[in-house]
Amino acid sequence: MVEEIKTYMTELGQRARAAAVEMARAPTAAKNNVLAAMADALERTRTDLREANERDLEAGRAHGLGEALLDRLALTDARILAMAEGLREIAKLPDPVGEISGMAYRPSGIQVGRMRVPLGVIGIIYESRPNVTADAAGLCLKSGNAAILRGGSEAIHSNQAIAACIREALAENDLPADAVQVVATTDRAAVGELVRMKDYVDIIVPRGGQGLIERVSRESQVPVIKHLHGVCHVYIDDAADHDKALAVAYNAKTQRYGTCNTMETLLVARGIAGDILPVLGGMYQEAGVELRGCQETRDILPGIAVATEEDWREEYLAPVLAIRVVEGLDEAIAHIRAYGSAHTDAIVTESFSRAQRFLHEVDSSSVMVNASTRFADGFEYGLGAEIGISTDKLHARGPVGLEGLTSLKYIVIGDGHVRS
Amino acid sequence: MVEEIKTYMTELGQRARAAAVEMARAPTAAKNNVLAAMADALERTRTDLREANERDLEAGRAHGLGEALLDRLALTDARILAMAEGLREIAKLPDPVGEISGMAYRPSGIQVGRMRVPLGVIGIIYESRPNVTADAAGLCLKSGNAAILRGGSEAIHSNQAIAACIREALAENDLPADAVQVVATTDRAAVGELVRMKDYVDIIVPRGGQGLIERVSRESQVPVIKHLHGVCHVYIDDAADHDKALAVAYNAKTQRYGTCNTMETLLVARGIAGDILPVLGGMYQEAGVELRGCQETRDILPGIAVATEEDWREEYLAPVLAIRVVEGLDEAIAHIRAYGSAHTDAIVTESFSRAQRFLHEVDSSSVMVNASTRFADGFEYGLGAEIGISTDKLHARGPVGLEGLTSLKYIVIGDGHVRS
Repeated sequence: MVEEIKTYMTELGQRARAAAVEMARAPTAAKNNVLAAMADALERTRTDLREANERDLEAGRAHGLGEALLDRLALTDARILAMAEGLREIAKLPDPVGEISGMAYRPSGIQVGRMRVPLGVIGIIYESRPNVTADAAGLCLKSGNAAILRGGSEAIHSNQAIAACIREALAENDLPADAVQVVATTDRAAVGELVRMKDYVDIIVPRGGQGLIERVSRESQVPVIKHLHGVCHVYIDDAADHDKALAVAYNAKTQRYGTCNTMETLLVARGIAGDILPVLGGMYQEAGVELRGCQETRDILPGIAVATEEDWREEYLAPVLAIRVVEGLDEAIAHIRAYGSAHTDAIVTESFSRAQRFLHEVDSSSVMVNASTRFADGFEYGLGAEIGISTDKLHARGPVGLEGLTSLKYIVIGDGHVRS
Repeated sequence: MVEEIKTYMTELGQRARAAAVEMARAPTAAKNNVLAAMADALERTRTDLREANERDLEAGRAHGLGEALLDRLALTDARILAMAEGLREIAKLPDPVGEISGMAYRPSGIQVGRMRVPLGVIGIIYESRPNVTADAAGLCLKSGNAAILRGGSEAIHSNQAIAACIREALAENDLPADAVQVVATTDRAAVGELVRMKDYVDIIVPRGGQGLIERVSRESQVPVIKHLHGVCHVYIDDAADHDKALAVAYNAKTQRYGTCNTMETLLVARGIAGDILPVLGGMYQEAGVELRGCQETRDILPGIAVATEEDWREEYLAPVLAIRVVEGLDEAIAHIRAYGSAHTDAIVTESFSRAQRFLHEVDSSSVMVNASTRFADGFEYGLGAEIGISTDKLHARGPVGLEGLTSLKYIVIGDGHVRS
């Protein structure tokens, strides 16, 4: 059985590698036409998609899947239309492939510059949401890559139905149908194979819970672009404008609780804590947010729970907030360095110099001044769509869009030039 | 003993991490002053350096090290002055840290851009040449990183003497002496620890023979920037200018034999082979290059050896050249894809369309038109100096200079903006 999986995955890998060569030179128009055809096919076959999805939902219910997971798994008409719309949006983005930058003459007489090129074959491993199948396929195709998609076993029928739409759209437009392959087995050994196929896969993007991401990172022999934790901070400096502080700190926590760019710890400068925390604390409590504070915070907001050492490291993904009073900027930066996850951190201040220091010294994938951490997102940043948010430092940091699925090669033009 | 090494390396890692925080915010002038002071210290103490080096050379001779290795190991006055000069050149390069690009308003009202920041702690593992200690330290410091350097055990005294100059220069300029640490033990377990210290090391750069690089890549739990093979090609198209073809193909092979950007396989279009190979073959043979050819090549150049399947994959690093006659551009690109190492490949042609196709379709870190592969080099590309040449696709491709030792984080500026 394991041998069969190995053979099956190797074949997928070889076909993906061959398709990647064709995709790398596919004209922009052909790629955009495929995206439009994918969108059309999803809309046209949405009754079939919902039927396939219903089989997954039934199996899920039979296996006792919780309500939240069943909701993620469900393909409603609205979600199918949103997938189609997402693909049309990707079609509108500029093609990153072939872009040449920095072309300049060198003293030797050669011209040197860089050209943006696809990475090759992207392996994406994800959990229950079937819309990732369409989104990820769209981003990989537009950036000239081939993709091997491995969705959650609970979504297998939905994903295969979406895959059929993608293959049809590729074939219609004379691009290789193998440019997007959805792994057809639910055997877990397939993931183990995928992350070991160094010859056929150039990068692995795991999307899902922390367990999945940690396992993939540990086992992978292929480079991984990953998002591990989102322990995001807002620091309210004592030179903050009160209204901006209230707006940013409230929005960063309450606009959505389950997202990775939601604030999990609020840091407040001692000089402003007595003024700001009573107001802000009331706003949070009214919104149903459970507060946990350091001793100084609890002196100002009596009755809230104690924040322990674990709270400073916790990604709640829930209406819970840890609050700490700090001496000032230095202590805030030190706290973020010690407990943060290098995802997204913001300062609220009117002090130009402190804003500058925060921007330069906080080493996170997104660093913000007077703006809500909730903005850390591919759409908000103008990338159009994202394959994920990277908390790694290499290659791609922060929201990863089309550019993160490409690399730069050097190009050199001479006229018979030789090195002396 | 292994436990001791583990403790020792962990301490190095912790000190490097702390130093990296200070280095990331070090002013440009302070970094440049350190580089100048390092250069001065190397020159001033060159008698001591030569003495330390003499101890290494003696031990090397006693251990029966070959002439080539002893030559690499030797620190002559000229080499010491070249190291110093290299550091002064790095000081002249623009500081990459803090550079902001792409800052633009988004429809939500926030401004989004990217800031170039250091990677953090760079681990460099290298073999006999002691000059790498100064070069690598210089590049890491200028790019705002801390470095842990692990040189070859045969160069331990030389490397420690150079390290003393670096520490002195750092301390003189109020920068942390731990910003550059040279591993003081020759125990091989230290390398194993270094590549596993995910919490303290952000990237590993192995420099040396293939054995070292393969071992480091296999064992490393930290991302690796590596250069694996240099099987470089020149393809002479049938639309090539004869003189340019002779100049480029001759230079690419004979200008230096032992370098990674030296051509190892020459591909010649069938339509021009009969004209060009007799001349070129004579030039190579006069230079003492051993030729190995496919059957068609041998029909044109009788008496040369047969090139086997292994020859197409071989990085000779020696006066040996494999030659293959191909139908034309498609077969040349297919050969490069099948046998190349994605390092550096060149076409010689006057055909604009074929040059364009070669530039776009050959997926190597450097792709050239009418220029010698020997140009693939950090100095020639204007990077000033290189920490190595990457044949990986992620993060950094081709010659890696200061920019490759940095990453881009997003910065967001609002005025109390929240997400709705």
